[in-house]
Amino acid sequence: MRPFVFINAAMSLDGKISNDRREQVRISSPEDFRVVDRLRAESDAVMVGIGTVLSDDPKLTVKSEELRRERVERGLPENPIRVVVDSRARTPLNSQVLNQAARTIVAVAEVADEEKVELLRRRAEVFVAGKERVDLRALLEHLYSIGVRRLMVEGGSEINYSLIREGLVDEIRVFYSGMVIAGRRAPTLVSGESFDTPVEARLKSVEPLGNGVAVVWEMRTANLRKV
Amino acid sequence: MRPFVFINAAMSLDGKISNDRREQVRISSPEDFRVVDRLRAESDAVMVGIGTVLSDDPKLTVKSEELRRERVERGLPENPIRVVVDSRARTPLNSQVLNQAARTIVAVAEVADEEKVELLRRRAEVFVAGKERVDLRALLEHLYSIGVRRLMVEGGSEINYSLIREGLVDEIRVFYSGMVIAGRRAPTLVSGESFDTPVEARLKSVEPLGNGVAVVWEMRTANLRKV
Ligand SMILES: NC(=O)c1ccc[n+]([C@@H]2O[C@H](COP(=O)([O-])OP(=O)(O)OC[C@H]3O[C@@H](n4cnc5c(N)ncnc54)[C@H](OP(=O)(O)O)[C@@H]3O)[C@@H](O)[C@H]2O)c1
Ligand SMILES: NC(=O)c1ccc[n+]([C@@H]2O[C@H](COP(=O)([O-])OP(=O)(O)OC[C@H]3O[C@@H](n4cnc5c(N)ncnc54)[C@H](OP(=O)(O)O)[C@@H]3O)[C@@H](O)[C@H]2O)c1
Repeated sequence: MRPFVFINAAMSLDGKISNDRREQVRISSPEDFRVVDRLRAESDAVMVGIGTVLSDDPKLTVKSEELRRERVERGLPENPIRVVVDSRARTPLNSQVLNQAARTIVAVAEVADEEKVELLRRRAEVFVAGKERVDLRALLEHLYSIGVRRLMVEGGSEINYSLIREGLVDEIRVFYSGMVIAGRRAPTLVSGESFDTPVEARLKSVEPLGNGVAVVWEMRTANLRKV
Repeated sequence: MRPFVFINAAMSLDGKISNDRREQVRISSPEDFRVVDRLRAESDAVMVGIGTVLSDDPKLTVKSEELRRERVERGLPENPIRVVVDSRARTPLNSQVLNQAARTIVAVAEVADEEKVELLRRRAEVFVAGKERVDLRALLEHLYSIGVRRLMVEGGSEINYSLIREGLVDEIRVFYSGMVIAGRRAPTLVSGESFDTPVEARLKSVEPLGNGVAVVWEMRTANLRKV
């Protein structure tokens, strides 16, 4: 079994989640930011790829004190578990995702350098799955086994691609933002190679939100939530 | 003076307007297709870049017989003028855009080979502006001078980029479609290089349409519609 998996992302109106210099562009509006914080607070774990850690160094914690308090009142830790997908154990030891604010799992593959893994083990839990690359299915199974029922994926484009290709995504929530970033090489929501046939999604909800539009898409591939 | 300029495009939910093999993917839904046909019928001219002609070979005519009849009743030609932006006169002589269904203008730059231009002149009007690349501002001015007040731009990503960069776009209408195309190298709505600062747009309208969402964004750069 695996958790319910949803991807959340903010995109410029022209389809970019960052610019071609891979800078962290403020794409979300304040209104979207609050919704995203709530989605995080309602999740058991939050996942990102190592690419996102290296370029954005996110904390991945719940920003609102009230939402953190609500979690504690429900008997939960202040923040959801943070999960980094990092085959070669490249997560920098001073990354914010390794701070003490929350439990962190770094998922690595068997190729990862032992010494690096040892250093990571002092600051986080390390989960090993997959030879060259992290086996995402095994990782989701592991997360389920430790109690994760709702997993929020916060990018980036390569992790999103692998999860969708393997049919492991139930929903995608996109905030389309009123700005044009442009750029042939800027990362989009889903990279990798184009699918032979596009993967279908069903429009679940749409609402204007600040100077943008929040849309929830339901993936049709993920009817069976099994691994 | 220049016409009112709007870009229309259909995009997968992950921001692609085609796949990384540059195949023509059916991104529009039937509902969107009808809206687009009406937008075309309501425009004085429709513009594309040579990239789009080479990969899609579009006709750029109004598909609905009824809409064509309505145009004629209003004293207009059946179809809007077709405009191809093609610096080096690469438009294939057997392109559908050169058929007899509508008036066609091929805009070339001074670098274009004379012989190729001469061959094009037998099938279309040729407008020369710009040294290495078509001078879009001069082209829009020319279109205005021959009576074009409303110009619909139907892509692709490089023409969109140049027009936006030069502040020549008033609105962008995007149909976000319920499918994931994926692909690091798939074209998006706006390519080129990323802007130093994203260009702002204002959410003008949003509505669910078939299995997707139609959004109109108003560009803030284009307050003065002058050239
Ligand atoms: N706007 C938003 O909502 C948003 C959100 C997040 C990120 N972003 C942007 O996205 C960009 C980062 O995206 P990215 O695509 O470069 O990185 P990413 O998806 O965050 O991470 C990709 C990396 O994950 C590792 N990985 C391990 N196992 C994998 C597997 N099975 N499949 C795929 N990847 C696997 C790979 O590196 P190893 O092989 O070394 O493990 C891969 O290079 C940044 O520019 C960031 O700003 C935007
Ligand atoms: N889904 C949709 O709504 C939609 C709509 C249209 C197209 N598309 C897709 O978009 C792709 C084509 O896009 P594209 O970006 O390759 O081509 P494009 O934007 O259609 O054409 C670009 C070409 O226009 C010419 N050009 C002349 N003057 C220019 C100027 N001032 N600025 C920029 N370009 C100028 C350039 O070639 P020269 O220098 O030789 O003139 C340039 O390579 C195709 O895959 C097509 O399927 C999708």
